[in-house]
Amino acid sequence: MGRGPLSDTLQRIFSFEGGGRGPWHVLRQASIRGEGLPPAERLGVGPLNTTGVTGKPVWRLKGQISNLRYAYRDEVARLRSRQEGLGRPHATRAALIPIRKSTRWWELAQDERRAVFEEQSHHTRIGLQYLPGVARQLFHARDLGEPFDFITWFEFAPEHEGAFDDLLEKLRATHEWEYVERETEIRLQRNPT
Amino acid sequence: MGRGPLSDTLQRIFSFEGGGRGPWHVLRQASIRGEGLPPAERLGVGPLNTTGVTGKPVWRLKGQISNLRYAYRDEVARLRSRQEGLGRPHATRAALIPIRKSTRWWELAQDERRAVFEEQSHHTRIGLQYLPGVARQLFHARDLGEPFDFITWFEFAPEHEGAFDDLLEKLRATHEWEYVERETEIRLQRNPT
Repeated sequence: MGRGPLSDTLQRIFSFEGGGRGPWHVLRQASIRGEGLPPAERLGVGPLNTTGVTGKPVWRLKGQISNLRYAYRDEVARLRSRQEGLGRPHATRAALIPIRKSTRWWELAQDERRAVFEEQSHHTRIGLQYLPGVARQLFHARDLGEPFDFITWFEFAPEHEGAFDDLLEKLRATHEWEYVERETEIRLQRNPT
Repeated sequence: MGRGPLSDTLQRIFSFEGGGRGPWHVLRQASIRGEGLPPAERLGVGPLNTTGVTGKPVWRLKGQISNLRYAYRDEVARLRSRQEGLGRPHATRAALIPIRKSTRWWELAQDERRAVFEEQSHHTRIGLQYLPGVARQLFHARDLGEPFDFITWFEFAPEHEGAFDDLLEKLRATHEWEYVERETEIRLQRNPT
């Protein structure tokens, strides 16, 4: 019953832990919509239970790197040509933004969700404007039975924090965001090593 | 951190257990492509760990009911108007077909996967031809870290078994099936109650 790439699958599942002692220092934490998360002073992120958090976490979320659900080939090509990976030494700021969308969103057909996501809200087009400064990784959580549908993780240099604020403002003003029913934002700074 | 619909989410996760004593009798079991599953004489299906299988199962799979990934609104409407649910008293035959697709499939962009799925392979259009005789439920397993990406479950009356054979033959002849790298088929008959 073995799956050759089973270890790959497990490596795609990430844990996000708040509390204890961890590599990221929480600058501020706020509920944007709906119930927030308990406050935490430190945070760690990593493949399943290797978050770098020591001591008892106050909360733990899980998410998985999966395939893109809306991007067309030309958009994927533009994203890949411009984006940079996580862990860049100069990217000492980060943001963790878990999101849950409404039942109404999930009941839309694929063409309807695509139209809201891109043709009406320009989700990919907006994100492209902030590459490569703001690096981004999406984790899927809904099919893991988690309290959020997605966990988004962003990394950038301190001088790009203003641009990141703009990015969030633009996305939250879109038609797509009318389907967001729970959203929490945690801004982070990497601890000096 | 509670999720209102968390219990809903957990109820969407189904277990599939082979072996022991269970409500479905295995008529035949065959690997269509790639590694098979250990042989089992009985099988049970149900929300997380309520499969009706007693005794130790030989294997256990998990899958989750999730949103449709490719169907457009008009296709969703046609499916809903024709399909019937699981558990119909006359539907005493069933088939469990777990499937894994290749990395090449998962690296396609959304528009490319949609084109292979429907415009080239007519997946929904073919399935519609066998409604309401052959009832079907798709379970997503890839994001649960399972050995298969999907678990498909079909229920039909004995007189529709020939139609079901036709359905499988048509789907396996499609371009989409060139991306299937593991597929096992288990035909079942419900035990008399």
